[in-house]
Amino acid sequence: MVSDLQGILSTNIKGMKRSAIRELLKLTNRPEIISFAGGLPASDTFPVEQLKEITLEVLTEEPEKALQYGATEGDIKLREELIKLYKKWDFDIDLNNLVITTASQQGLDLLSKIFINPGDTVICGLPSYLGGLSAFNSYGGKMVGIKFDDKGMRSDKLKETLENLKSEGIKPKFIYVIPDFQNPAGVTMPNSRRKEIIELAHEYDVLIIEDSPYKELRFEGEHQDSLYVLDGQGQVITMGTFSKIFVPGFRIGWIIAHPDIVDKFVLGKQATDLCTPAFVQKIASRYLAKGYFAENLKLTIKKYKEKKELMIKCFEREMPEGVTWTNPEGGLFLFVYLPEEMDARKLFERAIKNNVAFVTGDVFHCDGSGKNTMRMNFSYSSKDQICEGVTRLAKAIREEMAEL
Amino acid sequence: MVSDLQGILSTNIKGMKRSAIRELLKLTNRPEIISFAGGLPASDTFPVEQLKEITLEVLTEEPEKALQYGATEGDIKLREELIKLYKKWDFDIDLNNLVITTASQQGLDLLSKIFINPGDTVICGLPSYLGGLSAFNSYGGKMVGIKFDDKGMRSDKLKETLENLKSEGIKPKFIYVIPDFQNPAGVTMPNSRRKEIIELAHEYDVLIIEDSPYKELRFEGEHQDSLYVLDGQGQVITMGTFSKIFVPGFRIGWIIAHPDIVDKFVLGKQATDLCTPAFVQKIASRYLAKGYFAENLKLTIKKYKEKKELMIKCFEREMPEGVTWTNPEGGLFLFVYLPEEMDARKLFERAIKNNVAFVTGDVFHCDGSGKNTMRMNFSYSSKDQICEGVTRLAKAIREEMAEL
Repeated sequence: MVSDLQGILSTNIKGMKRSAIRELLKLTNRPEIISFAGGLPASDTFPVEQLKEITLEVLTEEPEKALQYGATEGDIKLREELIKLYKKWDFDIDLNNLVITTASQQGLDLLSKIFINPGDTVICGLPSYLGGLSAFNSYGGKMVGIKFDDKGMRSDKLKETLENLKSEGIKPKFIYVIPDFQNPAGVTMPNSRRKEIIELAHEYDVLIIEDSPYKELRFEGEHQDSLYVLDGQGQVITMGTFSKIFVPGFRIGWIIAHPDIVDKFVLGKQATDLCTPAFVQKIASRYLAKGYFAENLKLTIKKYKEKKELMIKCFEREMPEGVTWTNPEGGLFLFVYLPEEMDARKLFERAIKNNVAFVTGDVFHCDGSGKNTMRMNFSYSSKDQICEGVTRLAKAIREEMAEL
Repeated sequence: MVSDLQGILSTNIKGMKRSAIRELLKLTNRPEIISFAGGLPASDTFPVEQLKEITLEVLTEEPEKALQYGATEGDIKLREELIKLYKKWDFDIDLNNLVITTASQQGLDLLSKIFINPGDTVICGLPSYLGGLSAFNSYGGKMVGIKFDDKGMRSDKLKETLENLKSEGIKPKFIYVIPDFQNPAGVTMPNSRRKEIIELAHEYDVLIIEDSPYKELRFEGEHQDSLYVLDGQGQVITMGTFSKIFVPGFRIGWIIAHPDIVDKFVLGKQATDLCTPAFVQKIASRYLAKGYFAENLKLTIKKYKEKKELMIKCFEREMPEGVTWTNPEGGLFLFVYLPEEMDARKLFERAIKNNVAFVTGDVFHCDGSGKNTMRMNFSYSSKDQICEGVTRLAKAIREEMAEL
């Protein structure tokens, strides 16, 4: 071994930490633990029989292409199917606007590779998706957080921050938002707020990244327009993925953006993994073309809506005074606010002893705030586990409260 | 759109160029062109029927795991199977030494992420695999090239370079070698040369990266020990992939290294794509466990050996005086030396008019040398195409020579 491994590491890798969630998950692997910590879709939403049918078709009809290297931009049929899917949300896009990524996380990595020099400023929500923060951090990005209200990122606080940065001569590289059923906060930005954010982006000449993995998973309420569509002038980059609405095990995501930006994603992707597996892309494109996607999505939404409502009902029944939570209109998560003086990390230790797990909210806050918050996933656990798990959690919270 | 997209790009992306090969390949897509340009395995080596059988098994027996998120380190059964595979080459490794990557290119990307700060020096061969150079370049690495002889990277030149760098106070981050059937040069490093390179790495305290995608594809001659094994003390990182020996469409590769280094790869991978698709990993691990891998590899080797011998025979028959080529003991490529005064880029244009394509050798030379060289792939084309293509190419060369 070299004499000083630590000494020859890049500055960026030195600044990286293991994902707090993935490390927590290791603790929660014991079978007796009911875990609301992960962000996994429910396995019973996986269309196994349809995948058997399609996989055989692909291996019979186009094995040479499915098993060979593919285009960096992604499989053309899959891209065409995705464009059709986005037409229904009023996206005016063609093949030049879309590139396939090895799921959303690669989109976040490439985004960082394209735009972030060490020390560059990135604006994100308080809270924000941890995988986004990790990717930006892995390129030396400096995150500035914007407080939330029940409509998501506060536009008054965003304006204040943009103005302050401007006066310091700092131009942020982009504003990172998760407008639909936000991870972890579970809130959805109404159109009015979206428009305010876009106006600020125009005023301050900054890109917006719209990360929207749950968009299709709306249980109730009205569809809100995509920031990409509301902007309409190529200043928004939209990210999507099949991980929550089809299967995560294929690792297929995509970027929708202005062709000049897509071009940079393709350039970055060539050096990163050449191409996303052709085999799973071929399967996914047929899954869309056959109408299976639309058909199954309805079932998934029904299941998740029931689970969310059950979790909310259990919360209402079990939680002591002083604990509040968001009631998301879709997605996979709700966010819990403990009394200000409570520490979710301490609660976590007690919860594990009570055989229930969650993710502490602080890991989603780039400024280290949110110590009294926690994220709960409702998609993965069974209904019985949801009831029993919330009961255990409420007990842990009451015990922790008693010691305050 | 923002007012100055170019202005907000990262320094690293600004320094990146589109892959010369992938751009060339676009020119060579016309069906009338016989292309020796790509690095594709032959489609008739893909085990389609076995994959139908295994895929159904996976979707029947373990759909929940195959379609869900997987561990960042990779599927444990696949890693165990790979460890078994490497035991036959005397690798003394366990699960802590191996991480799955989204094919070799991701290995190269993560390697760069872990070690390269902009401006850092990396030592590579003249020539070297273009995907390696692209990855290092995408992190701002500064390549220093070492000349080749018929045993690969010259150890005398390497010593000279290491000494010169040392006197300038520069410590290179690693030495990048492709010891087996080198891409593009087609030469194999004998054990004696490997030992010299390792000794120099020890003396100058530098890591070695051993990129070995073709190791299993030996047609003739004696197996040479892996640098990882010869070193035996964790100073070598070995990279492998299924792309040339199974299917590229799964995008599965791996890194073998000291556990402290593997740890950094896992950390980098978490932020890059979370995990490689579980679905294809499950299929690949069964493909190995059932013995199909070993069985099919024999057939692939037989096919490629025949194609290589045919290409060499065609070269011997067709090529004019002054053209020489390597005769590789395995792999996918042979390398051609045109007379010194010839320019392979000019030849390329003529060749395309004659409906035959190759890759110019200069793209593999980090110092811009190699203008009179070219890479020929013999794995992908049919035997008829090899004969006809070499005839067309020889004609183009003779025409070009006549104009010198």
